[in-house]
Amino acid sequence: MHVCLSYPRLILILIPFFVLSTAGTIRAQSSARYTLVIHGGAGTITRANMKPEMEKAYLRSLEAALDQGEKMLASGRTALDVVEAVVRLLEDDSLFNAGKGAVYTHAGEHELDAAIMNGKNLMAGAVAGVKTIRNPITAARSVMEHSEHVMLSGRGAEEFAKQRGLEGVDNSYFHTESRRRALERALEAERKEAKEKQVPSAKNTAMKNDWKYGTVGAVALDQYGDLAAATSTGGMTNKKFGRIGDAPLIGSGTYADSLVAVSCTGWGEFFIRMVMAKSLADRMRFGKQTLTIAGHELINIELPRMGGDGGLIAVDRNGEPIMPFCTEGMYRGFVRKLSGAALSQRQVAIYKD
Amino acid sequence: MHVCLSYPRLILILIPFFVLSTAGTIRAQSSARYTLVIHGGAGTITRANMKPEMEKAYLRSLEAALDQGEKMLASGRTALDVVEAVVRLLEDDSLFNAGKGAVYTHAGEHELDAAIMNGKNLMAGAVAGVKTIRNPITAARSVMEHSEHVMLSGRGAEEFAKQRGLEGVDNSYFHTESRRRALERALEAERKEAKEKQVPSAKNTAMKNDWKYGTVGAVALDQYGDLAAATSTGGMTNKKFGRIGDAPLIGSGTYADSLVAVSCTGWGEFFIRMVMAKSLADRMRFGKQTLTIAGHELINIELPRMGGDGGLIAVDRNGEPIMPFCTEGMYRGFVRKLSGAALSQRQVAIYKD
Repeated sequence: MHVCLSYPRLILILIPFFVLSTAGTIRAQSSARYTLVIHGGAGTITRANMKPEMEKAYLRSLEAALDQGEKMLASGRTALDVVEAVVRLLEDDSLFNAGKGAVYTHAGEHELDAAIMNGKNLMAGAVAGVKTIRNPITAARSVMEHSEHVMLSGRGAEEFAKQRGLEGVDNSYFHTESRRRALERALEAERKEAKEKQVPSAKNTAMKNDWKYGTVGAVALDQYGDLAAATSTGGMTNKKFGRIGDAPLIGSGTYADSLVAVSCTGWGEFFIRMVMAKSLADRMRFGKQTLTIAGHELINIELPRMGGDGGLIAVDRNGEPIMPFCTEGMYRGFVRKLSGAALSQRQVAIYKD
Repeated sequence: MHVCLSYPRLILILIPFFVLSTAGTIRAQSSARYTLVIHGGAGTITRANMKPEMEKAYLRSLEAALDQGEKMLASGRTALDVVEAVVRLLEDDSLFNAGKGAVYTHAGEHELDAAIMNGKNLMAGAVAGVKTIRNPITAARSVMEHSEHVMLSGRGAEEFAKQRGLEGVDNSYFHTESRRRALERALEAERKEAKEKQVPSAKNTAMKNDWKYGTVGAVALDQYGDLAAATSTGGMTNKKFGRIGDAPLIGSGTYADSLVAVSCTGWGEFFIRMVMAKSLADRMRFGKQTLTIAGHELINIELPRMGGDGGLIAVDRNGEPIMPFCTEGMYRGFVRKLSGAALSQRQVAIYKD
């Protein structure tokens, strides 16, 4: 038998298949689950200190990052792609201390650190002390995927990024007026302290106050059940001596495996000494603690007991998000879609209450 | 009643007290326990490849390091003092890839990394990519004790060491002929591979062979029950792009807490991704694994499963030493004195059997 169809007729016949397959996609999407959690740093962030227009700007930026990440997760992108993209967005956002808007070092420059980890295969990449790479998180991913190393630093890392064709910028690209003023205040405080107490110059007064905070990070669980984590930071205002904080250190500021993905923010030195992110994972894996209990014990009990502060975001393989912190505030948010749910849950917040 | 004593008579009366108190010290010492474990790197070290005079030289150096460390432990020095002193000795020894005798980078220089951690209070210090500090382990300790940071890198770290008055050297101080020749062989192999396979320059052929190994480390339990760990390395021959390995990363190559002290050696990238040293500690703390089982599972099962290799040394709070490795050899040794024992146990070894 021979069937002849005109073009419009063929289309009419095919429409039901399209509808069915689209419906199938919708069903697949609505049964898919995913979670994205983000942070933009923890510190002395109180309602009293915050101008209403700044508060709005921060909330808008957090919402935009969640929007972008959720769109990607819903369309089936991997957790790894999503955490990189979301951290890039926050790096490009001058409100946060990462990429554009990074704080100033003692020498009046910007030195950036970033790390990314894929929980699916425990691959990881990091860069430390880079000054001319527009998006350090993308450089970290490039180290993971295109070198046989995990961590590259300084000029060597910049040379690698250049060879890989990543976007370079002049160090002045990262400048913002508010960060410049923060450095000036830090230097002034330091001069004053040095004069009063004859403090050795190796000690850094900036550690004593809130200039040490500000990092961005994202963790995600994708539709395939895989986890990833990414963290990026400009470090602390007035930092000296090529200081490396916890953000680019796998296991300290950033970690992901098959159980949990973690990104930290806070007083980096304590997060390094506690090997914070891996501690959270191991409490779950070996201590059989829940994510919530492990996060609470580490951030609200152990960290303050040691004299540090800060917070973290994490998501486990069930898509459960946590955002514990022991500072006055933390820029944070999450979006979570449960399997079979029509709508996703979402929250953005800044203060403790 | 009134008692008058001449000076010599007073001394005669006091002598028995001195004797008693000294005897007490002796008793305390003989009942004191301590352990020191050291390594000088893991790799393709076989009897077939090793010249007899080199074997003797390595064993002599390991024995000398154990001698020095045991003397200090027996006299009541802390684990922290001992691991620093022993690693200094190994840094000054040109046989090992740390300090004098460190390998060459791609650029024909020496870039050194080191870390130290005090299990008593979880304080830690590290330096990465330093070129002009004679003893990087002492710089790491200085970062721990005299800065508010944990990790300093590159020129900044050197500037800090200079301010602290640590001994500086020209980069050429670290030179040895054998390491220079190793770089030449690595560069030649790289040129050949690039010609044959058009390998992108970001990939580093040196990773494929044994040039990636060689690190020194020490872990100790002192008479007071405290633990400490120290690691120092020149990294891998022909390294590029400011690569940082696991040695200076707290939780990866170096870690100590109240349960265990760990120092790693091997293919650093895998040790970072596994956050090796902290994993060992957490398997004990949260998984209730014994030191031996935790070390065996990590080094002989998990590490090869991921495609990496290397080894570690560790000591737990009972003074139990382990030295597992999955390469053909590891320069290693330990000395252990049990509570109440008259003599200490000692072992130095190179090969697997």
